[in-house]
Amino acid sequence: MRMVDIITKKRDGGILTREEIHYFIEGYTRGAIPDYQASALCMAILFKGMNNDEISILTDEMCHSGATMDLSKIDGVKVDKHSTGGVGDKTSLVLCPMVASCGVKVAKMSGRGLGHTGGTLDKLESIPGLSVTKSDEEFIRQVNDIGIAIIGQTSELDPADKKLYALRDVTGTVEAIPLIASSIMSKKLASGTDTILLDVTFGEGAFMKDIDSARELARVMVDIGNGLGKNTKAVLSSMEEPLGYAVGNSLEIKEVVNALHGKGPKDLMELCYKCGSIILMQAGITHTEKEGRLMLSESIRSGKAYMTFENMVKAQGGDIAFLENPDKFRESGFIINLISSSEGYVSKINALTIGEVSMKLGAGREKLDDMIDMAAGILLHKKVGDYVKKGDTLLEIHTSRSNYKELIKELEGAFELVSKPVPTHEVVWEVVE
Amino acid sequence: MRMVDIITKKRDGGILTREEIHYFIEGYTRGAIPDYQASALCMAILFKGMNNDEISILTDEMCHSGATMDLSKIDGVKVDKHSTGGVGDKTSLVLCPMVASCGVKVAKMSGRGLGHTGGTLDKLESIPGLSVTKSDEEFIRQVNDIGIAIIGQTSELDPADKKLYALRDVTGTVEAIPLIASSIMSKKLASGTDTILLDVTFGEGAFMKDIDSARELARVMVDIGNGLGKNTKAVLSSMEEPLGYAVGNSLEIKEVVNALHGKGPKDLMELCYKCGSIILMQAGITHTEKEGRLMLSESIRSGKAYMTFENMVKAQGGDIAFLENPDKFRESGFIINLISSSEGYVSKINALTIGEVSMKLGAGREKLDDMIDMAAGILLHKKVGDYVKKGDTLLEIHTSRSNYKELIKELEGAFELVSKPVPTHEVVWEVVE
Repeated sequence: MRMVDIITKKRDGGILTREEIHYFIEGYTRGAIPDYQASALCMAILFKGMNNDEISILTDEMCHSGATMDLSKIDGVKVDKHSTGGVGDKTSLVLCPMVASCGVKVAKMSGRGLGHTGGTLDKLESIPGLSVTKSDEEFIRQVNDIGIAIIGQTSELDPADKKLYALRDVTGTVEAIPLIASSIMSKKLASGTDTILLDVTFGEGAFMKDIDSARELARVMVDIGNGLGKNTKAVLSSMEEPLGYAVGNSLEIKEVVNALHGKGPKDLMELCYKCGSIILMQAGITHTEKEGRLMLSESIRSGKAYMTFENMVKAQGGDIAFLENPDKFRESGFIINLISSSEGYVSKINALTIGEVSMKLGAGREKLDDMIDMAAGILLHKKVGDYVKKGDTLLEIHTSRSNYKELIKELEGAFELVSKPVPTHEVVWEVVE
Repeated sequence: MRMVDIITKKRDGGILTREEIHYFIEGYTRGAIPDYQASALCMAILFKGMNNDEISILTDEMCHSGATMDLSKIDGVKVDKHSTGGVGDKTSLVLCPMVASCGVKVAKMSGRGLGHTGGTLDKLESIPGLSVTKSDEEFIRQVNDIGIAIIGQTSELDPADKKLYALRDVTGTVEAIPLIASSIMSKKLASGTDTILLDVTFGEGAFMKDIDSARELARVMVDIGNGLGKNTKAVLSSMEEPLGYAVGNSLEIKEVVNALHGKGPKDLMELCYKCGSIILMQAGITHTEKEGRLMLSESIRSGKAYMTFENMVKAQGGDIAFLENPDKFRESGFIINLISSSEGYVSKINALTIGEVSMKLGAGREKLDDMIDMAAGILLHKKVGDYVKKGDTLLEIHTSRSNYKELIKELEGAFELVSKPVPTHEVVWEVVE
């Protein structure tokens, strides 16, 4: 078998066999197939696509390109949740403690932020002392003890994805649905969970720009997961405006704490209730969405959800004094209010712009080895649907970089005001199962 | 500027600017842009194409990626001829002496064979002693002295093409017309010629499988050449069956010698007369095709064409005793006649099969560093249109490899016999100017 023949076959619209996909993934992982052939194949896949069988085989081969996690020593149903990313998307940090406090086991491996999107691990690490590194044994013990752990992926898991993802990032081949789907699903499957809930975001601030491509990606991933024996569902959620009010690591942790105390933003909480009720049904704990929503709201009301989060932070070495008194978080050197010079109803807040500016303020990374300023970010004062008067604060800029002034024009351009009332954004649009 | 943005732009169907193409070629040539980004761009070009301006800029940038040849010290009009390759294609070795003996200057750089196609340099090197390596000064002096030199391309010329060609070969990106056209034309332009005649082959044994794609490629190359100030024309020639009777290096040299003595195969000679008469008009030596054909047939009849070839071989160190007595060429260990088991008119001789089997007999290379057996190859006894009786010899197999028996079935499959008379193949189909 020759790699060039596999590339040519896909280029000409052929369907790759398991042997061919195995040859590629196995050879690429151990370095026998060079990057330049892998990138040519990725580009051919981007143009010619893959059918469901091919994507499923690709996922399976990637999943088995390294070690897989054995979670059988964890009692109960292990659930996992994955978001395709967004701006201000702290859903996992609210949702996972909520469902864990209802009795499911959350053994979650998360990622870091890149570009305009944030990462759950970065947000967690803004809590002083907290570590996202655990041995397999420690990880399993923590989930058994307190029902939840959120850590970074171990390097033995899915090495094919690590290499491919880095390559796709610099070769214009990120956007191919078969490659996105196999990248996400191979990691989820390697991590050994029983059920998977995918939050596939769409809109300005998301990877998928419209609901149709989000639906296509969700459909493919749900089919792969179910085909490989994992109960998998997806919600399609809108990422037109940032989720909640806070964008940036410690700013978002404060919002998470508020949310777990029952004071969460409407859009964030709706997404958590929707996802949480599906997860509880996947785990067999409840039978209807209504039942799940009741149980979840009780977990917030009673403080159980918050305590689960606090227990997790403590178990991972984090200083819970920062949760009990969020004012302890270091503030940025500059906190500047962006004042509205006009009035009207907010019809749009461009999530992509907010995410990109937030990154430039220090909250994110342009390249994987950039340092993050945990305190930096943006705190919205207004959301879509709100009425704004001249002189009102649209948002706060939090940064320690003095060049923030160059970014104000961009932020002003992110807002659109209109004279007639605008409905608030729906967050969850569809469930794919 | 970032290479990933250039890839993404082309992937999405954008038109690359001179700055972007320069950034790519310049960076790739000096190793600043890695192979994996170049291969992704090549694949994107394969799918999305390039307009004439882009191809012309790409050609120009490749041409100037290294040194260019200065032929101004050669008196007279310097002409060049390039074939896109075929099976048994020894046209240059007959045609170039013919036109040189009519007064044009042939300062030609040729290539080696790869896959099922042979290369002019390999064929020349089957003459003992002959060298295809010359310094620029020696090359120019030889052309001034005897009107012709055929050598290998110097390594300083068009380094971008060398890297790109090797990369395309292993990444399934050979077939893209913008890349084929720029590869051929950048080398021709870097070699400093005044006029260019392209022989674009099509059919089973050629790179372009049908006349439409051959015409498209020819159109693009002719426009590039003329746009960059070189008088450029192309003929479209059929490569359904091998050209002439001999396939394999010294076998073809014997056929070349016969052809220059006036005993050439009909198809080969027609191609030489057609191309030659165009070259003489490009050089301003004649004004009509008829005039050119007369002059060329006189060059054969008088022995001038043959003597020009012999002078060239001598000047490049070759032993002309082998030309004067071709029986001196070493014979293969095995010479086997393939006998026809049926009868009829030959309607097809699959040139691709003949070329591939010939390579497997030792006449060609699968990889660039394979060794060639100069004596190996195939000598056809029949051509399309000929009548074959049971027991007639279809072809001779020349090889020193004992595993030739495995190849006989393939060779038998290359012939198609039908009961009704079949016209002989036309060689030249169109001229593109």
